[in-house]
Amino acid sequence: MTFLEIINKVDSFVLDSSFYDLKSHDGIARLGYINPDIAQFFKFESSFIINENSIQIKPEFDTIEKRNELFNQLGLKWKELPEFDELLKKGWRNELYVVYNPSTEPYVLIERALSVLLGVITYGVHINGYVPPETTSNNKLKMWIPKRSMTKPTYPGMLDNTVAGGLGYPHGLHETVIKECFEEAGLKEDFVLNNSKSCGVVSYFYKTEDNRFQPEVEYIYDIKFDDETNIIQPQDGEAEDFQLLEIDEILQLLKQHKFKPNCGLVIIDFLIRHGYITPENEPNYLEIVSRCHRVIPFPTR
Amino acid sequence: MTFLEIINKVDSFVLDSSFYDLKSHDGIARLGYINPDIAQFFKFESSFIINENSIQIKPEFDTIEKRNELFNQLGLKWKELPEFDELLKKGWRNELYVVYNPSTEPYVLIERALSVLLGVITYGVHINGYVPPETTSNNKLKMWIPKRSMTKPTYPGMLDNTVAGGLGYPHGLHETVIKECFEEAGLKEDFVLNNSKSCGVVSYFYKTEDNRFQPEVEYIYDIKFDDETNIIQPQDGEAEDFQLLEIDEILQLLKQHKFKPNCGLVIIDFLIRHGYITPENEPNYLEIVSRCHRVIPFPTR
Repeated sequence: MTFLEIINKVDSFVLDSSFYDLKSHDGIARLGYINPDIAQFFKFESSFIINENSIQIKPEFDTIEKRNELFNQLGLKWKELPEFDELLKKGWRNELYVVYNPSTEPYVLIERALSVLLGVITYGVHINGYVPPETTSNNKLKMWIPKRSMTKPTYPGMLDNTVAGGLGYPHGLHETVIKECFEEAGLKEDFVLNNSKSCGVVSYFYKTEDNRFQPEVEYIYDIKFDDETNIIQPQDGEAEDFQLLEIDEILQLLKQHKFKPNCGLVIIDFLIRHGYITPENEPNYLEIVSRCHRVIPFPTR
Repeated sequence: MTFLEIINKVDSFVLDSSFYDLKSHDGIARLGYINPDIAQFFKFESSFIINENSIQIKPEFDTIEKRNELFNQLGLKWKELPEFDELLKKGWRNELYVVYNPSTEPYVLIERALSVLLGVITYGVHINGYVPPETTSNNKLKMWIPKRSMTKPTYPGMLDNTVAGGLGYPHGLHETVIKECFEEAGLKEDFVLNNSKSCGVVSYFYKTEDNRFQPEVEYIYDIKFDDETNIIQPQDGEAEDFQLLEIDEILQLLKQHKFKPNCGLVIIDFLIRHGYITPENEPNYLEIVSRCHRVIPFPTR
């Protein structure tokens, strides 16, 4: 598998006219693209105006409180439908994601499991833990790579980024980085503050197997470890184990498709920024870089 | 001036229906977008098929040699027209740029000055020379910033990236980095090989003042200097002087619009990758990052 094939798996959505725009209550902003199967369920909802190719929140939902309650009720109702058993009932997280329009102020808070049905942007942080070549035993760059627990509902047993997590309300980015680094890897706040660096953001248009649009924005951080000492002690059960893999192994594992696809994309971005994947050794370099940084067609945070 | 305003100056083109597709001789590939004023001049050219919204190279131009000769003749003829006095006659570089379709093999070679009239992609390298905070006198990141010569036809006196240059035929990227580092900054090949790193690529859609489309792809390299010693000795007259500026000054100068705009974009990309511009201190972070990495709608190298 080439690196471009990994990107193609993650940035896989192409808009077609069967999708519906999810519109704000004032009709001005487009908040997401809803797939036609999901759109059918809105026909039974009196709080939305359904047109040929848009689903608009009714104008009366003119405060965030009213909109939160609207989507809360929608989620609670839909999760009892047999059609949503898998995605909503089993996937329910009791975690709120924020939709923006377009300001730093939230427009509506939506249960994480419901937000992915609505084709709105979800945000997260992905963190690359690495030991630079100067301080490894063999002068090769190494990364701390976890294997996802076999009991995870999605991508069990696949390789992951050192730490990653969704940006749930009301947590900020910085706070989420600190929180996830502790929960998933047992890294102390001081260590994270002193060794992590914001390095960019990736954005891509994912098409799910059931043809839904899932645009994701993942803020990228690198954490530099001083040496190969293992200071990682997972606090939750997200990862089965962490291995310190060197660059050649990582490149192999990427090509063998052992990484959860969007984590593969994050590693590819890391290897591009650190000069391991270059325009001279990767024929699809330009396409890869630009496809990892899609311009989002909705208001964003 | 905000950072987003700098990006808006560089990634400024929005396609409208008045533009013509420049099509390959087989009619399959779109190679560029030609503005309607330039398109008028093709009406006098018998080697092109003009349709309502496309200008196609005639099918008989089925080898690169024939196409090279076609565009060579076109350039020589047009540069004598008074309308192209500024852009072609004065701008003539005797340097060939490559258009691809879509493979690593060149499709046609076009004089640099003509290629920008045709709305095809041009490629270059931009190089950030920096001293990391660990090795500066005051523990602040510093960058070597040249001031463009007052005699340059474009953006005289503005600040630039440490080294930058177009990717002319038949030079490779690596070769261009070495060549430009020597010509513009007197940096020796050994030093560049040991201290430079490929770090990504930026791509953006520039609209010129006269409404032409100029999509640019700039491969990005960072060169790390060990300390603040000045080892820069310009060999050509491109730069008036080089100054070692520290991060706070650079941020100020960016906001005061002292950088040539696309060099400002490259510095913004650098400061994002190095953790100085972050999603927490820059409200338009996501838009800035994605707008610096446009997906190109043509075949690329």
